[in-house]
Amino acid sequence: MALDAPQALDAARDVAQHLALDALERDRTGAEPVAEAELLRKAGLPNLLLPTSIGGGGLPWSVGLEVVREIARTDGSVAQLLAYHYVNAHNLVWVADDAGRARWGVPSAEQQWLWGDAVNPVDPDLELAADPAAGGYVLRGAKTFSTGASVGDVTVVGGLAADSGEHLLVVVPREAPGFVKGGDWDNLGQRLSASGSVRFEDVRIAPQDVLGSTSPAATTPFSSLVTPAIQAAFGHFYLGVTRGALEAAAEYTRTTSRPWLLSGVASATEDPYVLATYGRLVARLRAAEALGRSVGRSLSQAHERGHDLTWDERGEVAEEIAALKVVSSDLAVEATSAIYEVTGARATSNRYGFDRFWRNVRTHTLHDPVQYKAREVGAHFVTGAHPQFTLYT
Amino acid sequence: MALDAPQALDAARDVAQHLALDALERDRTGAEPVAEAELLRKAGLPNLLLPTSIGGGGLPWSVGLEVVREIARTDGSVAQLLAYHYVNAHNLVWVADDAGRARWGVPSAEQQWLWGDAVNPVDPDLELAADPAAGGYVLRGAKTFSTGASVGDVTVVGGLAADSGEHLLVVVPREAPGFVKGGDWDNLGQRLSASGSVRFEDVRIAPQDVLGSTSPAATTPFSSLVTPAIQAAFGHFYLGVTRGALEAAAEYTRTTSRPWLLSGVASATEDPYVLATYGRLVARLRAAEALGRSVGRSLSQAHERGHDLTWDERGEVAEEIAALKVVSSDLAVEATSAIYEVTGARATSNRYGFDRFWRNVRTHTLHDPVQYKAREVGAHFVTGAHPQFTLYT
Amino acid sequence: MALDAPQALDAARDVAQHLALDALERDRTGAEPVAEAELLRKAGLPNLLLPTSIGGGGLPWSVGLEVVREIARTDGSVAQLLAYHYVNAHNLVWVADDAGRARWGVPSAEQQWLWGDAVNPVDPDLELAADPAAGGYVLRGAKTFSTGASVGDVTVVGGLAADSGEHLLVVVPREAPGFVKGGDWDNLGQRLSASGSVRFEDVRIAPQDVLGSTSPAATTPFSSLVTPAIQAAFGHFYLGVTRGALEAAAEYTRTTSRPWLLSGVASATEDPYVLATYGRLVARLRAAEALGRSVGRSLSQAHERGHDLTWDERGEVAEEIAALKVVSSDLAVEATSAIYEVTGARATSNRYGFDRFWRNVRTHTLHDPVQYKAREVGAHFVTGAHPQFTLYT
Amino acid sequence: MALDAPQALDAARDVAQHLALDALERDRTGAEPVAEAELLRKAGLPNLLLPTSIGGGGLPWSVGLEVVREIARTDGSVAQLLAYHYVNAHNLVWVADDAGRARWGVPSAEQQWLWGDAVNPVDPDLELAADPAAGGYVLRGAKTFSTGASVGDVTVVGGLAADSGEHLLVVVPREAPGFVKGGDWDNLGQRLSASGSVRFEDVRIAPQDVLGSTSPAATTPFSSLVTPAIQAAFGHFYLGVTRGALEAAAEYTRTTSRPWLLSGVASATEDPYVLATYGRLVARLRAAEALGRSVGRSLSQAHERGHDLTWDERGEVAEEIAALKVVSSDLAVEATSAIYEVTGARATSNRYGFDRFWRNVRTHTLHDPVQYKAREVGAHFVTGAHPQFTLYT
Repeated sequence: MALDAPQALDAARDVAQHLALDALERDRTGAEPVAEAELLRKAGLPNLLLPTSIGGGGLPWSVGLEVVREIARTDGSVAQLLAYHYVNAHNLVWVADDAGRARWGVPSAEQQWLWGDAVNPVDPDLELAADPAAGGYVLRGAKTFSTGASVGDVTVVGGLAADSGEHLLVVVPREAPGFVKGGDWDNLGQRLSASGSVRFEDVRIAPQDVLGSTSPAATTPFSSLVTPAIQAAFGHFYLGVTRGALEAAAEYTRTTSRPWLLSGVASATEDPYVLATYGRLVARLRAAEALGRSVGRSLSQAHERGHDLTWDERGEVAEEIAALKVVSSDLAVEATSAIYEVTGARATSNRYGFDRFWRNVRTHTLHDPVQYKAREVGAHFVTGAHPQFTLYT
Repeated sequence: MALDAPQALDAARDVAQHLALDALERDRTGAEPVAEAELLRKAGLPNLLLPTSIGGGGLPWSVGLEVVREIARTDGSVAQLLAYHYVNAHNLVWVADDAGRARWGVPSAEQQWLWGDAVNPVDPDLELAADPAAGGYVLRGAKTFSTGASVGDVTVVGGLAADSGEHLLVVVPREAPGFVKGGDWDNLGQRLSASGSVRFEDVRIAPQDVLGSTSPAATTPFSSLVTPAIQAAFGHFYLGVTRGALEAAAEYTRTTSRPWLLSGVASATEDPYVLATYGRLVARLRAAEALGRSVGRSLSQAHERGHDLTWDERGEVAEEIAALKVVSSDLAVEATSAIYEVTGARATSNRYGFDRFWRNVRTHTLHDPVQYKAREVGAHFVTGAHPQFTLYT
Repeated sequence: MALDAPQALDAARDVAQHLALDALERDRTGAEPVAEAELLRKAGLPNLLLPTSIGGGGLPWSVGLEVVREIARTDGSVAQLLAYHYVNAHNLVWVADDAGRARWGVPSAEQQWLWGDAVNPVDPDLELAADPAAGGYVLRGAKTFSTGASVGDVTVVGGLAADSGEHLLVVVPREAPGFVKGGDWDNLGQRLSASGSVRFEDVRIAPQDVLGSTSPAATTPFSSLVTPAIQAAFGHFYLGVTRGALEAAAEYTRTTSRPWLLSGVASATEDPYVLATYGRLVARLRAAEALGRSVGRSLSQAHERGHDLTWDERGEVAEEIAALKVVSSDLAVEATSAIYEVTGARATSNRYGFDRFWRNVRTHTLHDPVQYKAREVGAHFVTGAHPQFTLYT
Repeated sequence: MALDAPQALDAARDVAQHLALDALERDRTGAEPVAEAELLRKAGLPNLLLPTSIGGGGLPWSVGLEVVREIARTDGSVAQLLAYHYVNAHNLVWVADDAGRARWGVPSAEQQWLWGDAVNPVDPDLELAADPAAGGYVLRGAKTFSTGASVGDVTVVGGLAADSGEHLLVVVPREAPGFVKGGDWDNLGQRLSASGSVRFEDVRIAPQDVLGSTSPAATTPFSSLVTPAIQAAFGHFYLGVTRGALEAAAEYTRTTSRPWLLSGVASATEDPYVLATYGRLVARLRAAEALGRSVGRSLSQAHERGHDLTWDERGEVAEEIAALKVVSSDLAVEATSAIYEVTGARATSNRYGFDRFWRNVRTHTLHDPVQYKAREVGAHFVTGAHPQFTLYT
């Protein structure tokens, strides 16, 4: 039984509230998000976007993005985990055929699987060596970052078939022999996002574990939605963290901040600079959120076009999403640092941990340089050009 | 026969295109926009938002705002004229009773009247002295700014009734004896907006010329929509000018800019800085436009609530509009100056007149200080408070 | 033997280099900076600014500020400790008389004492109860923040004399009975700055422990230099951290950053966006550093005027320093976050700890709100007014 | 009799004050600055920097830059004219030999000549065809921009010798037959800067009119100071206009601005937002001015090194100047637009003409794209590289 849209958003808010209770402690511990993943499963969030034909919720991308945004308000790491999962699992729709959907999609929808990924194109390609004996492949190599591999039920992996030269997407269960998780994610932010390295030491890939081809020849406008989808999820994730940071700050300003000695006002909530600083950040956030909702609608519509989607249509939605990426990245980094200016010196106490918002977006907004997204938006505006499909454009 | 929504937007685009042909020359001449007003009338744009019951188009505010935005892309002055008109004429709905609507609304809708205003609250109140002989009032005093009075068919005027102490809204036809237009608008921008001073030298106001009361006791959430409506119109006006400026710049970059000597690229359209600068401005514009569309829906819905609208509901829509005001003002002023950085030194030739975009928004965004709008948005976010109704909040 | 100016700067650079070796580890441990304080003493830096008449170096403030800036390049906490010391110890010149200088200044200069302080005016006043028996006072009360108390040789403490109502400055040795250090500084940044709370439980203050009065009646333009001096030291501290952050980032960009996949360049050091981002930050830093050097000269000159200094002269130097505070705060917070944009995603690894720069300036720039400094600079520019002396202005 | 440094600065301030009287009117008229040029001559400003050996003032570049800055406070156009003159005439030092200095320098110093230029490298090279009969050259071709040609006593012109392939610098008197001034400068700003096009229709160049070679082989670190010098002059020009704009605005705020209706303060000079906006702009200006003074000292020192100057030393001063260019350009464009936010809506009246500050810097800062200067500063910081000499670097 999958959730409908209102139920999904309610569930997301419940999860967010639950995660808020010990977000700070969990961030400090920095353990693998095993309990958090279980919380997502129990809330029924992982299968929302899967097709109803395989038991999924069949909800549009707009709902998935809203869910990510809600969770990001209190826990950026878990929001990242879920955001990547939605995109990873959607390869069932974009790349797999009916057999693949039956084999991997049905249990995924039923058991609320979470999907990790190992597809990072800046690392060298993983090798899929032919395995004539068993009729499939042997997977070898390593990736520096791999979100969700350590707590996901399965991981979708991109590899280069040594025989055919094709890029294939294969599915690897978490406990597959030879699938080694580095557990080495020790970074500034997104500390619970399970984003460490992975290594594949001769992992057996049966023929039915191959989801499909992602070689250029096999790529269609529809299957290439993978990039706009992940970029849209990033944008919503940044929006959620930003709102969460401003809400936490406002709570502090209301309850704890002291009026400044030279301000002449009785309460920090009357300080003209405090208020105008909030106002400018909130105004920008509202604009970015409005663009986020528009992006949700556009992506949903493009996705519903299915195999009829053209490269031009795909390009238009990609540019709207690139614009969201730019404004939400810039705003998130700035706002999460600026909250200290409206809370004050005592808010730097580690008892509050208000820096986790900045650490989370400062870390994740570097996924791909925002200047190149700005360049892409500009080139489209000036020349009408759409960039070629890559895992970043 | 009023236009429907698609027709209205088509008509707006036609008008915009027509105005583009000689926008630069007309801006230089700075004459009263008599021909421009006539163009709006002929296009059927003035009566779009008036109730169908009096012969208007009955279209929602969202359409009116889009129309303003379209026209602002090529002519900021005419967009201002129309934006103010929509709000001024809407006092027929917010303030007038059925008799007033019949007397002033029916001919207005039929003849596509344009409405000016003289209500600026920073000048001293105009006086409405009782006129026992004629049974109405005699209107006296002056206002420094009065958009549309000189070319509008009628002007809506706020005055203080000397006898009752009530604030009344009265209608004054353009040719009324004693209604003197200063013709003295000689400012940096919005040169054709007919925004000069007015003087009322014993203008006779018959009882039926009184549209209604705007005293605090008579003000309702519904009638107080006048401020959100005009602020929403400002925001759309800024958005339109910004897009117009970026479009004009992009056309120049494509066709006329030279690649910079040290850039190593063959065309200005490949310069990494030119493209990223466009990209960041366009991304912000898309976010602000998305907020603009959301504002259009919110204002339309609030307006449809009519007299059921509560102060809280009115406050919520007012805050969304205040956020639009902040982001659109900041962006408009910055973008219209930045276009020179993506066009280059030769684009400063007066043959192009690209400065009119900056002059227009630099002038009009000072209508009320954007910092106080930011403060208002911040106070609402932190404390939940809505500001008291004024002609600015 | 005190150092001369070139020796002092060499010593500062040596200390900075030494501190750089394990800055990251020490920041993580967050212990009391006992060893660091000893390093400063051994380098001969604490007595640089004390008068030669009591055995100090007699160097001008400009040199002290440069020393702070040099150390801040590698260790913000130790730079803060030394900066506060210079100002605290200078009460020997501003407030003490010859007897006080002899009692406290001579050993201070000879033994390279570090001076902490407990004067924070946003906490309630400390009480100096008359002690008729012993002929001095008994000091009681607490301060939330107190830089240097735990590792300084003495702490200068501001208290309110219960009998006379005078504000007195008294000196308390670190080991004085009843002087309790909270050891509770657990904040975002400046983790080794020994800035925890202090409590005074009936600490005996002998008459000769009173340095002098800081009551309004006793305050002169010269003695009020305490505020410009500490604010100038803040500014230099921010400049040093900013340069340190950019240097660390540039080293990483040169040696470790990869060129972006879509950049078309062979090295991150050729990426147009990376270079222009560095360029804008460095250009602003060079301007702020030039103002810092100018501030050094101005403060030195004002100080050399001694008791001839007028309130107007004091006001002029205070405004130049306020300007430095504004530009250095804004730049420091922005640049220390922006370094990630020129180093890239992998630079978020905790192995590098590049976030300590941001954490340090994000924490300390909240000492007093920069908006109120901007207001002060603006008021001076528009009206010529100088603010009244406080410990913030 | 040339002026000494204090006299020069006094004279500059006198000229500035004189120019202020009708700056607005003259800007509107946009005539050739014939009277303004004469004013500069009479004040004794043109020969300040020429060597004493030929009758010049022998003052350092730092003084010349200060003079430019002072004049730019009230008249950007005249400041540009003088700034370019200083650089153009200095080819007497950088490029000419003793004979050239005697022929052109002596009358220049004595009669306070102003030197224009026609060297713009983005236009095609001018041709110097050998003139075997007369023993010199015939100069042919055109340049789009040429500051000072129409009012300067002589113009220094760069041309390509058809025979030798050398780049030569030649001097052309204003009235030389065939030297045609377009009088076609009709641009957004710098309206009186005499920057129109020029055409050379077979202008006779005698052998003694050749100042020297600027071919790469002949270029030395010393002679290449032409670019840092002109860029330093630009920076000072921007600083002067910025300070002039802020001073004009402050005068208006003090005397004419009204407090905002909702501000709760009695005067615009107490508005918290007005003051903080001024404060941030003034703080940045003070930092940029401090860098400007430092640049003045550095350029003077480099110049005094004469032919001993190394490429590395030249590179270091060029980078400091590039940093000044970046911060002064960014600030000037922003501040001259922001002054309206601290003066208010009525300050847009054309009676005040406050837009001339923005128009002037908006126009001139496009001389060469500031992003490429930022890139240069960044490359130097990251890699230590100095750019190759061009007329822009």
